[in-house]
Amino acid sequence: MQLLSSLDNPLVKHLRSLHEARFRREVGAVLIEGQRAIDGCLLAGWKPQHILLSEQVELPTSWVAHPLVRMSQRVAEKLSQASTPSGYIAAFSLPQPAPLAVERGGLVLVDVHDPGNVGTLIRCAAAFQLSQCVLFGGADPYSHKVLQATAGAFAGMQIHRYASDQSLSLLAGGAPRCALVVRGGQQPPTLKPGPRWLVLGSEAHGLDEQRMAECEERLTLPMPGAVESLNVAMAGAIACYAIFSTRSTTSTEALP
Amino acid sequence: MQLLSSLDNPLVKHLRSLHEARFRREVGAVLIEGQRAIDGCLLAGWKPQHILLSEQVELPTSWVAHPLVRMSQRVAEKLSQASTPSGYIAAFSLPQPAPLAVERGGLVLVDVHDPGNVGTLIRCAAAFQLSQCVLFGGADPYSHKVLQATAGAFAGMQIHRYASDQSLSLLAGGAPRCALVVRGGQQPPTLKPGPRWLVLGSEAHGLDEQRMAECEERLTLPMPGAVESLNVAMAGAIACYAIFSTRSTTSTEALP
Repeated sequence: MQLLSSLDNPLVKHLRSLHEARFRREVGAVLIEGQRAIDGCLLAGWKPQHILLSEQVELPTSWVAHPLVRMSQRVAEKLSQASTPSGYIAAFSLPQPAPLAVERGGLVLVDVHDPGNVGTLIRCAAAFQLSQCVLFGGADPYSHKVLQATAGAFAGMQIHRYASDQSLSLLAGGAPRCALVVRGGQQPPTLKPGPRWLVLGSEAHGLDEQRMAECEERLTLPMPGAVESLNVAMAGAIACYAIFSTRSTTSTEALP
Repeated sequence: MQLLSSLDNPLVKHLRSLHEARFRREVGAVLIEGQRAIDGCLLAGWKPQHILLSEQVELPTSWVAHPLVRMSQRVAEKLSQASTPSGYIAAFSLPQPAPLAVERGGLVLVDVHDPGNVGTLIRCAAAFQLSQCVLFGGADPYSHKVLQATAGAFAGMQIHRYASDQSLSLLAGGAPRCALVVRGGQQPPTLKPGPRWLVLGSEAHGLDEQRMAECEERLTLPMPGAVESLNVAMAGAIACYAIFSTRSTTSTEALP
Protein backbone atom coordinates (compact mmCIF):
# COMPACT_ATOMS: atom_id res chain seq x y z
CA MET A 1 0.00 0.00 0.00
CA GLN A 2 1.19 3.54 -0.81
CA LEU A 3 2.41 5.77 2.00
CA LEU A 4 1.36 9.39 1.82
CA SER A 5 3.94 11.32 3.84
CA SER A 6 4.48 14.70 2.20
CA LEU A 7 2.33 17.64 3.19
CA ASP A 8 3.02 19.05 -0.29
CA ASN A 9 1.43 16.12 -2.06
CA PRO A 10 -1.45 17.48 -4.18
CA LEU A 11 -3.77 14.75 -2.89
CA VAL A 12 -3.13 15.97 0.66
CA LYS A 13 -3.81 19.52 -0.47
CA HIS A 14 -6.99 18.45 -2.26
CA LEU A 15 -8.30 16.53 0.75
CA ARG A 16 -7.37 19.36 3.09
CA SER A 17 -9.41 21.74 0.92
CA LEU A 18 -12.52 19.67 1.73
CA HIS A 19 -12.48 21.25 5.20
CA GLU A 20 -14.06 24.22 3.42
CA ALA A 21 -17.70 24.26 2.32
CA ARG A 22 -17.01 25.94 -1.03
CA PHE A 23 -14.55 23.20 -2.08
CA ARG A 24 -16.91 20.47 -0.87
CA ARG A 25 -19.60 22.02 -3.06
CA GLU A 26 -17.32 22.54 -6.06
CA VAL A 27 -16.00 18.99 -6.17
CA GLY A 28 -19.06 17.26 -4.69
CA ALA A 29 -17.09 15.42 -2.02
CA VAL A 30 -16.98 15.23 1.76
CA LEU A 31 -14.44 14.07 4.39
CA ILE A 32 -15.50 11.51 6.97
CA GLU A 33 -13.37 10.64 10.00
CA GLY A 34 -13.35 7.60 12.26
CA GLN A 35 -13.66 3.90 11.58
CA ARG A 36 -17.31 3.61 12.61
CA ALA A 37 -18.48 6.63 10.64
CA ILE A 38 -16.64 5.43 7.52
CA ASP A 39 -18.09 1.95 7.99
CA GLY A 40 -21.56 3.48 8.24
CA CYS A 41 -21.08 5.32 4.95
CA LEU A 42 -19.80 2.20 3.17
CA LEU A 43 -22.72 0.15 4.50
CA ALA A 44 -25.14 2.85 3.30
CA GLY A 45 -23.67 2.54 -0.19
CA TRP A 46 -21.70 5.80 -0.27
CA LYS A 47 -18.86 5.77 -2.84
CA PRO A 48 -15.37 6.27 -1.36
CA GLN A 49 -12.84 8.19 -3.45
CA HIS A 50 -9.95 7.68 -1.04
CA ILE A 51 -9.64 5.93 2.30
CA LEU A 52 -6.58 6.94 4.32
CA LEU A 53 -5.24 5.06 7.34
CA SER A 54 -2.46 6.04 9.73
CA GLU A 55 0.52 3.67 9.73
CA GLN A 56 -0.29 2.27 13.16
CA VAL A 57 -4.03 1.52 12.78
CA GLU A 58 -5.54 -1.79 11.72
CA LEU A 59 -7.15 -2.23 8.30
CA PRO A 60 -10.76 -3.44 8.68
CA THR A 61 -11.07 -6.53 6.46
CA SER A 62 -14.30 -5.32 4.88
CA TRP A 63 -12.45 -2.32 3.42
CA VAL A 64 -9.92 -4.21 1.25
CA ALA A 65 -11.90 -3.76 -1.98
CA HIS A 66 -11.75 0.02 -1.62
CA PRO A 67 -9.07 2.58 -2.67
CA LEU A 68 -6.76 2.55 0.36
CA VAL A 69 -3.67 4.63 1.17
CA ARG A 70 -1.54 4.73 4.30
CA MET A 71 -0.68 8.18 5.66
CA SER A 72 2.04 9.46 7.95
CA GLN A 73 1.27 10.95 11.35
CA ARG A 74 1.94 14.43 9.97
CA VAL A 75 -0.52 13.95 7.11
CA ALA A 76 -3.12 12.54 9.52
CA GLU A 77 -2.78 15.63 11.69
CA LYS A 78 -3.02 17.89 8.68
CA LEU A 79 -6.23 16.27 7.43
CA SER A 80 -8.02 15.61 10.71
CA GLN A 81 -10.47 18.08 12.22
CA ALA A 82 -10.93 15.98 15.36
CA SER A 83 -9.34 16.95 18.67
CA THR A 84 -7.88 13.42 18.87
CA PRO A 85 -7.39 12.09 15.31
CA SER A 86 -8.62 8.51 14.93
CA GLY A 87 -6.21 7.57 12.14
CA TYR A 88 -9.10 6.91 9.71
CA ILE A 89 -10.14 9.52 7.14
CA ALA A 90 -12.07 9.01 3.92
CA ALA A 91 -13.25 11.21 1.06
CA PHE A 92 -16.64 10.21 -0.29
CA SER A 93 -18.57 11.51 -3.28
CA LEU A 94 -21.32 13.64 -1.82
CA PRO A 95 -24.29 11.27 -2.02
CA GLN A 96 -27.23 12.26 -4.14
CA PRO A 97 -30.34 11.83 -2.00
CA ALA A 98 -33.25 9.89 -3.39
CA PRO A 99 -35.94 12.20 -4.83
CA LEU A 100 -38.04 13.83 -2.11
CA ALA A 101 -40.88 11.54 -1.11
CA VAL A 102 -43.35 14.16 0.12
CA GLU A 103 -45.79 11.55 1.37
CA ARG A 104 -43.25 10.08 3.81
CA GLY A 105 -42.49 13.25 5.78
CA GLY A 106 -39.38 13.79 7.84
CA LEU A 107 -37.47 16.55 9.58
CA VAL A 108 -37.31 20.11 8.23
CA LEU A 109 -34.78 22.59 9.61
CA VAL A 110 -35.20 26.24 8.61
CA ASP A 111 -32.09 28.38 9.22
CA VAL A 112 -30.79 26.25 12.08
CA HIS A 113 -27.25 27.57 12.25
CA ASP A 114 -25.52 25.84 15.14
CA PRO A 115 -23.68 22.76 13.81
CA GLY A 116 -24.19 20.92 17.11
CA ASN A 117 -27.94 21.51 16.92
CA VAL A 118 -28.16 20.37 13.29
CA GLY A 119 -26.11 17.23 14.01
CA THR A 120 -28.08 16.39 17.14
CA LEU A 121 -31.38 16.81 15.33
CA ILE A 122 -30.29 14.63 12.39
CA ARG A 123 -29.27 11.98 14.93
CA CYS A 124 -32.68 12.14 16.62
CA ALA A 125 -34.49 12.05 13.29
CA ALA A 126 -32.54 8.91 12.39
CA ALA A 127 -33.28 7.34 15.78
CA PHE A 128 -37.01 7.87 15.37
CA GLN A 129 -37.20 6.96 11.68
CA LEU A 130 -37.75 10.34 10.14
CA SER A 131 -35.35 9.33 7.40
CA GLN A 132 -35.64 12.41 5.21
CA CYS A 133 -34.09 15.64 6.39
CA VAL A 134 -34.70 18.86 4.49
CA LEU A 135 -32.52 21.86 5.30
CA PHE A 136 -33.37 25.42 4.30
CA GLY A 137 -30.21 27.48 4.85
CA GLY A 138 -28.39 27.06 8.17
CA ALA A 139 -25.31 24.98 8.91
CA ASP A 140 -23.66 22.87 6.20
CA PRO A 141 -24.66 19.28 7.07
CA TYR A 142 -21.35 18.01 5.65
CA SER A 143 -19.15 20.14 7.90
CA HIS A 144 -17.05 18.25 10.41
CA LYS A 145 -18.91 19.61 13.44
CA VAL A 146 -22.31 18.57 12.11
CA LEU A 147 -21.11 15.13 11.06
CA GLN A 148 -19.47 14.62 14.45
CA ALA A 149 -22.64 15.62 16.31
CA THR A 150 -24.68 13.09 14.33
CA ALA A 151 -22.42 10.35 15.76
CA GLY A 152 -22.54 8.40 12.49
CA ALA A 153 -26.31 8.67 12.06
CA PHE A 154 -26.16 10.72 8.84
CA ALA A 155 -25.23 7.86 6.50
CA GLY A 156 -28.70 6.34 6.32
CA MET A 157 -30.45 9.72 6.05
CA GLN A 158 -31.69 11.32 2.86
CA ILE A 159 -30.47 14.90 3.20
CA HIS A 160 -31.88 17.62 0.93
CA ARG A 161 -30.61 21.19 0.94
CA TYR A 162 -32.29 24.35 -0.28
CA ALA A 163 -31.54 28.04 -0.01
CA SER A 164 -32.81 29.85 3.04
CA ASP A 165 -35.37 31.82 1.00
CA GLN A 166 -36.98 28.80 -0.69
CA SER A 167 -40.58 28.13 0.20
CA LEU A 168 -41.93 25.14 2.10
CA SER A 169 -44.22 24.56 -0.89
CA LEU A 170 -41.52 22.15 -2.09
CA LEU A 171 -42.99 19.76 0.48
CA ALA A 172 -46.63 20.39 -0.33
CA GLY A 173 -49.09 17.74 -1.42
CA GLY A 174 -47.86 14.94 0.80
CA ALA A 175 -47.58 14.45 4.54
CA PRO A 176 -48.81 17.48 6.51
CA ARG A 177 -46.22 20.10 7.45
CA CYS A 178 -46.22 20.42 11.23
CA ALA A 179 -44.59 23.52 12.75
CA LEU A 180 -43.16 23.18 16.26
CA VAL A 181 -44.21 26.32 18.12
CA VAL A 182 -43.71 27.49 21.70
CA ARG A 183 -47.41 28.05 22.35
CA GLY A 184 -50.84 27.64 20.81
CA GLY A 185 -50.29 24.40 18.90
CA GLN A 186 -51.83 20.97 19.34
CA GLN A 187 -50.40 18.71 22.02
CA PRO A 188 -48.62 15.59 20.75
CA PRO A 189 -51.26 13.00 21.77
CA THR A 190 -53.92 14.87 19.76
CA LEU A 191 -52.01 14.60 16.45
CA LYS A 192 -53.64 12.49 13.78
CA PRO A 193 -51.54 9.32 13.38
CA GLY A 194 -49.42 9.02 10.25
CA PRO A 195 -46.28 10.49 8.71
CA ARG A 196 -45.66 14.23 8.80
CA TRP A 197 -42.99 16.86 8.23
CA LEU A 198 -41.71 18.22 11.54
CA VAL A 199 -40.74 21.83 10.78
CA LEU A 200 -38.30 23.58 13.15
CA GLY A 201 -37.23 27.23 12.93
CA SER A 202 -34.00 29.02 13.74
CA GLU A 203 -32.45 29.29 17.20
CA ALA A 204 -32.96 33.04 17.31
CA HIS A 205 -36.27 33.66 15.56
CA GLY A 206 -38.19 30.41 15.21
CA LEU A 207 -40.36 30.25 12.09
CA ASP A 208 -41.48 33.36 10.25
CA GLU A 209 -45.12 34.15 9.47
CA GLN A 210 -44.88 33.03 5.86
CA ARG A 211 -43.50 29.59 6.65
CA MET A 212 -45.95 29.24 9.53
CA ALA A 213 -48.81 29.92 7.10
CA GLU A 214 -47.59 27.11 4.86
CA CYS A 215 -47.83 24.52 7.66
CA GLU A 216 -51.05 22.55 7.95
CA GLU A 217 -50.42 21.73 11.64
CA ARG A 218 -48.87 23.34 14.72
CA LEU A 219 -47.42 21.31 17.54
CA THR A 220 -46.65 22.57 21.05
CA LEU A 221 -44.95 20.47 23.70
CA PRO A 222 -46.78 20.63 27.02
CA MET A 223 -44.37 22.35 29.38
CA PRO A 224 -45.95 22.94 32.76
CA GLY A 225 -42.76 24.00 34.57
CA ALA A 226 -41.51 27.55 34.92
CA VAL A 227 -39.31 27.40 31.81
CA GLU A 228 -39.88 29.75 28.91
CA SER A 229 -38.86 27.28 26.24
CA LEU A 230 -36.30 24.62 25.50
CA ASN A 231 -33.63 25.15 22.88
CA VAL A 232 -34.31 23.91 19.36
CA ALA A 233 -32.19 20.76 19.77
CA MET A 234 -33.98 19.60 22.94
CA ALA A 235 -37.46 20.61 21.83
CA GLY A 236 -36.82 19.05 18.41
CA ALA A 237 -35.52 15.82 19.96
CA ILE A 238 -38.63 15.51 22.10
CA ALA A 239 -40.86 16.35 19.13
CA CYS A 240 -39.17 13.63 17.00
CA TYR A 241 -39.96 11.16 19.78
CA ALA A 242 -43.50 12.46 20.25
CA ILE A 243 -44.23 12.23 16.53
CA PHE A 244 -42.77 8.75 16.38
CA SER A 245 -44.97 7.72 19.33
CA THR A 246 -48.01 8.96 17.44
CA ARG A 247 -47.06 6.85 14.45
CA SER A 248 -46.29 3.76 16.46
CA THR A 249 -49.70 4.00 18.13
CA THR A 250 -51.19 3.38 14.69
CA SER A 251 -49.31 0.16 14.22
CA THR A 252 -50.24 -1.33 17.57
CA GLU A 253 -53.84 -0.19 17.72
CA ALA A 254 -56.46 -1.58 15.37
CA LEU A 255 -57.13 1.30 13.04
CA PRO A 256 -58.88 1.04 9.69
CA MET B 1 -24.82 54.38 44.31
CA GLN B 2 -21.19 53.29 44.85
CA LEU B 3 -18.96 52.77 41.84
CA LEU B 4 -16.61 49.81 41.99
CA SER B 5 -13.78 50.63 39.62
CA SER B 6 -10.56 49.18 41.05
CA LEU B 7 -9.55 45.64 40.18
CA ASP B 8 -7.66 45.60 43.51
CA ASN B 9 -10.78 46.16 45.55
CA PRO B 10 -11.14 43.18 47.94
CA LEU B 11 -14.82 42.80 47.02
CA VAL B 12 -13.82 42.39 43.36
CA LYS B 13 -11.22 39.82 44.41
CA HIS B 14 -13.76 37.99 46.57
CA LEU B 15 -16.37 37.88 43.82
CA ARG B 16 -13.77 36.82 41.26
CA SER B 17 -12.81 33.90 43.55
CA LEU B 18 -16.38 32.57 43.17
CA HIS B 19 -15.42 31.45 39.66
CA GLU B 20 -13.77 28.54 41.48
CA ALA B 21 -15.76 25.66 42.97
CA ARG B 22 -13.65 25.45 46.16
CA PHE B 23 -14.33 29.11 47.05
CA ARG B 24 -18.03 28.73 46.22
CA ARG B 25 -18.11 25.81 48.64
CA GLU B 26 -16.07 27.54 51.35
CA VAL B 27 -18.17 30.68 51.44
CA GLY B 28 -21.49 29.13 50.39
CA ALA B 29 -22.10 31.63 47.59
CA VAL B 30 -22.56 31.59 43.83
CA LEU B 31 -22.28 34.14 41.01
CA ILE B 32 -25.22 34.64 38.66
CA GLU B 33 -24.99 36.66 35.44
CA GLY B 34 -27.66 38.30 33.34
CA GLN B 35 -30.76 40.29 34.21
CA ARG B 36 -33.21 37.46 33.61
CA ALA B 37 -31.26 34.86 35.57
CA ILE B 38 -30.85 37.26 38.52
CA ASP B 39 -34.56 38.10 38.36
CA GLY B 40 -35.36 34.38 38.42
CA CYS B 41 -33.26 33.89 41.56
CA LEU B 42 -34.86 36.88 43.31
CA LEU B 43 -38.35 35.64 42.42
CA ALA B 44 -37.45 32.18 43.75
CA GLY B 45 -36.51 33.76 47.07
CA TRP B 46 -32.73 33.44 46.80
CA LYS B 47 -30.85 35.91 49.03
CA PRO B 48 -28.57 38.34 47.15
CA GLN B 49 -25.31 39.39 48.86
CA HIS B 50 -24.31 41.88 46.16
CA ILE B 51 -25.88 42.95 42.89
CA LEU B 52 -23.48 44.70 40.49
CA LEU B 53 -24.51 46.69 37.44
CA SER B 54 -22.36 48.20 34.71
CA GLU B 55 -22.55 51.98 34.49
CA GLN B 56 -24.50 51.95 31.25
CA VAL B 57 -27.23 49.40 32.06
CA GLU B 58 -30.66 50.20 33.42
CA LEU B 59 -31.62 49.37 37.00
CA PRO B 60 -34.75 47.16 37.08
CA THR B 61 -37.19 48.87 39.44
CA SER B 62 -37.93 45.64 41.34
CA TRP B 63 -34.29 45.48 42.46
CA VAL B 64 -34.14 48.75 44.40
CA ALA B 65 -34.57 47.11 47.81
CA HIS B 66 -31.47 44.97 47.26
CA PRO B 67 -27.78 45.70 47.90
CA LEU B 68 -26.74 47.39 44.63
CA VAL B 69 -23.35 48.59 43.40
CA ARG B 70 -22.33 50.05 40.04
CA MET B 71 -19.19 48.62 38.48
CA SER B 72 -16.78 49.93 35.82
CA GLN B 73 -16.38 48.20 32.48
CA ARG B 74 -13.03 46.76 33.63
CA VAL B 75 -14.57 45.26 36.75
CA ALA B 76 -17.45 43.85 34.72
CA GLU B 77 -14.99 42.16 32.38
CA LYS B 78 -12.98 40.80 35.30
CA LEU B 79 -16.04 39.28 36.97
CA SER B 80 -17.94 38.02 33.94
CA GLN B 81 -17.52 34.49 32.59
CA ALA B 82 -19.79 35.14 29.62
CA SER B 83 -18.42 35.68 26.14
CA THR B 84 -20.44 38.89 25.92
CA PRO B 85 -20.88 40.30 29.46
CA SER B 86 -24.44 41.44 30.12
CA GLY B 87 -23.52 44.10 32.68
CA TYR B 88 -25.49 42.33 35.43
CA ILE B 89 -23.73 40.12 37.99
CA ALA B 90 -24.94 39.06 41.42
CA ALA B 91 -23.58 37.00 44.28
CA PHE B 92 -26.22 34.93 46.05
CA SER B 93 -26.00 32.80 49.18
CA LEU B 94 -26.02 29.23 47.94
CA PRO B 95 -29.64 28.24 48.58
CA GLN B 96 -30.31 25.39 50.97
CA PRO B 97 -32.67 22.98 49.20
CA ALA B 98 -35.79 21.85 50.99
CA PRO B 99 -35.34 18.40 52.58
CA LEU B 100 -35.51 15.57 50.02
CA ALA B 101 -39.12 14.58 49.44
CA VAL B 102 -38.56 10.97 48.35
CA GLU B 103 -42.22 10.46 47.51
CA ARG B 104 -42.17 13.24 44.89
CA GLY B 105 -39.37 11.86 42.70
CA GLY B 106 -37.32 13.93 40.29
CA LEU B 107 -34.17 13.75 38.22
CA VAL B 108 -31.07 11.87 39.38
CA LEU B 109 -27.72 12.37 37.62
CA VAL B 110 -24.93 9.94 38.48
CA ASP B 111 -21.45 11.15 37.45
CA VAL B 112 -22.71 13.28 34.56
CA HIS B 113 -19.59 15.36 33.96
CA ASP B 114 -20.28 17.61 30.99
CA PRO B 115 -21.57 20.99 32.27
CA GLY B 116 -23.68 21.46 29.13
CA ASN B 117 -25.38 18.11 29.69
CA VAL B 118 -26.05 18.80 33.37
CA GLY B 119 -27.46 22.26 32.60
CA THR B 120 -29.60 21.00 29.73
CA LEU B 121 -31.01 18.19 31.86
CA ILE B 122 -31.82 20.51 34.77
CA ARG B 123 -33.64 22.75 32.27
CA CYS B 124 -35.66 19.81 30.93
CA ALA B 125 -36.44 18.58 34.43
CA ALA B 126 -37.75 22.05 35.30
CA ALA B 127 -39.79 22.18 32.07
CA PHE B 128 -41.50 18.88 32.85
CA GLN B 129 -41.96 19.49 36.58
CA LEU B 130 -39.39 17.13 38.00
CA SER B 131 -38.54 19.84 40.51
CA GLN B 132 -36.01 17.91 42.59
CA CYS B 133 -32.60 17.19 41.07
CA VAL B 134 -30.17 14.91 42.88
CA LEU B 135 -26.56 14.87 41.69
CA PHE B 136 -24.09 12.15 42.62
CA GLY B 137 -20.63 13.46 41.64
CA GLY B 138 -20.26 14.97 38.17
CA ALA B 139 -20.24 18.64 37.20
CA ASP B 140 -20.68 21.38 39.81
CA PRO B 141 -24.26 22.64 39.23
CA TYR B 142 -23.23 26.13 40.35
CA SER B 143 -20.46 26.53 37.79
CA HIS B 144 -21.00 29.19 35.15
CA LYS B 145 -21.29 26.70 32.29
CA VAL B 146 -23.98 24.65 34.02
CA LEU B 147 -25.95 27.71 35.09
CA GLN B 148 -25.73 29.12 31.57
CA ALA B 149 -26.98 25.86 30.02
CA THR B 150 -30.01 25.83 32.34
CA ALA B 151 -31.03 29.18 30.82
CA GLY B 152 -32.35 30.41 34.16
CA ALA B 153 -34.29 27.25 34.97
CA PHE B 154 -32.24 26.35 38.06
CA ALA B 155 -33.76 28.93 40.39
CA GLY B 156 -36.98 27.04 41.05
CA MET B 157 -35.25 23.64 41.32
CA GLN B 158 -34.36 21.88 44.55
CA ILE B 159 -30.78 20.74 43.90
CA HIS B 160 -29.19 18.14 46.18
CA ARG B 161 -25.56 17.07 45.86
CA TYR B 162 -23.86 13.92 47.09
CA ALA B 163 -20.47 12.34 46.57
CA SER B 164 -20.06 10.07 43.58
CA ASP B 165 -19.75 6.96 45.79
CA GLN B 166 -22.95 7.55 47.78
CA SER B 167 -25.69 4.99 47.32
CA LEU B 168 -29.10 5.54 45.72
CA SER B 169 -30.59 4.20 48.96
CA LEU B 170 -30.84 7.87 49.98
CA LEU B 171 -33.86 7.94 47.70
CA ALA B 172 -35.40 4.67 48.87
CA GLY B 173 -38.87 4.32 50.33
CA GLY B 174 -40.64 6.84 48.14
CA ALA B 175 -41.24 7.12 44.40
CA PRO B 176 -39.70 4.24 42.42
CA ARG B 177 -36.17 4.75 41.08
CA CYS B 178 -36.32 4.32 37.32
CA ALA B 179 -33.01 3.72 35.48
CA LEU B 180 -32.81 4.87 31.86
CA VAL B 181 -31.08 2.05 29.96
CA VAL B 182 -30.22 1.57 26.29
CA ARG B 183 -31.98 -1.76 26.01
CA GLY B 184 -34.14 -4.21 27.91
CA GLY B 185 -36.24 -1.75 29.91
CA GLN B 186 -39.96 -0.98 29.81
CA GLN B 187 -41.23 1.34 27.10
CA PRO B 188 -42.57 4.69 28.34
CA PRO B 189 -46.30 4.03 27.73
CA THR B 190 -46.14 0.90 29.92
CA LEU B 191 -44.93 2.78 33.00
CA LYS B 192 -47.30 2.88 35.93
CA PRO B 193 -48.59 6.46 36.28
CA GLY B 194 -47.27 8.51 39.17
CA PRO B 195 -44.10 10.27 40.31
CA ARG B 196 -40.73 8.55 39.97
CA TRP B 197 -37.00 9.19 40.12
CA LEU B 198 -35.49 9.23 36.64
CA VAL B 199 -31.93 7.93 37.11
CA LEU B 200 -29.33 8.74 34.42
CA GLY B 201 -25.74 7.46 34.35
CA SER B 202 -22.50 8.97 33.13
CA GLU B 203 -21.73 9.88 29.51
CA ALA B 204 -19.02 7.24 29.27
CA HIS B 205 -20.27 4.31 31.34
CA GLY B 206 -23.98 4.70 32.03
CA LEU B 207 -25.06 3.21 35.37
CA ASP B 208 -23.01 0.58 37.18
CA GLU B 209 -24.41 -2.78 38.30
CA GLN B 210 -24.81 -1.73 41.91
CA ARG B 211 -26.85 1.36 41.14
CA MET B 212 -28.86 -0.55 38.56
CA ALA B 213 -29.74 -3.13 41.23
CA GLU B 214 -31.07 -0.36 43.47
CA CYS B 215 -33.56 0.81 40.83
CA GLU B 216 -37.07 -0.65 40.98
CA GLU B 217 -37.74 0.15 37.29
CA ARG B 218 -35.86 0.27 34.00
CA LEU B 219 -36.93 2.46 31.12
CA THR B 220 -35.82 2.14 27.48
CA LEU B 221 -36.78 4.61 24.77
CA PRO B 222 -38.08 2.86 21.65
CA MET B 223 -35.53 3.67 18.95
CA PRO B 224 -36.33 1.89 15.72
CA GLY B 225 -33.82 3.76 13.55
CA ALA B 226 -30.25 2.66 12.87
CA VAL B 227 -28.78 4.68 15.73
CA GLU B 228 -26.91 2.97 18.55
CA SER B 229 -28.03 5.36 21.24
CA LEU B 230 -28.61 9.03 21.86
CA ASN B 231 -26.35 10.98 24.19
CA VAL B 232 -27.40 11.39 27.81
CA ALA B 233 -28.73 14.94 27.33
CA MET B 234 -31.04 13.99 24.45
CA ALA B 235 -32.13 10.64 25.86
CA GLY B 236 -32.66 12.28 29.27
CA ALA B 237 -34.67 15.13 27.75
CA ILE B 238 -36.95 12.69 25.96
CA ALA B 239 -37.27 10.57 29.11
CA CYS B 240 -38.26 13.65 31.17
CA TYR B 241 -41.00 14.32 28.62
CA ALA B 242 -42.08 10.67 28.46
CA ILE B 243 -42.30 10.42 32.25
CA PHE B 244 -44.23 13.68 32.39
CA SER B 245 -46.65 12.36 29.75
CA THR B 246 -47.25 9.28 31.88
CA ARG B 247 -48.09 11.47 34.84
CA SER B 248 -50.31 13.82 32.91
CA THR B 249 -52.29 10.86 31.55
CA THR B 250 -53.37 10.20 35.13
CA SER B 251 -54.81 13.63 35.57
CA THR B 252 -56.81 13.68 32.34
CA GLU B 253 -58.08 10.10 32.37
CA ALA B 254 -60.55 8.88 34.94
CA LEU B 255 -58.46 6.58 37.13
CA PRO B 256 -59.55 5.28 40.51
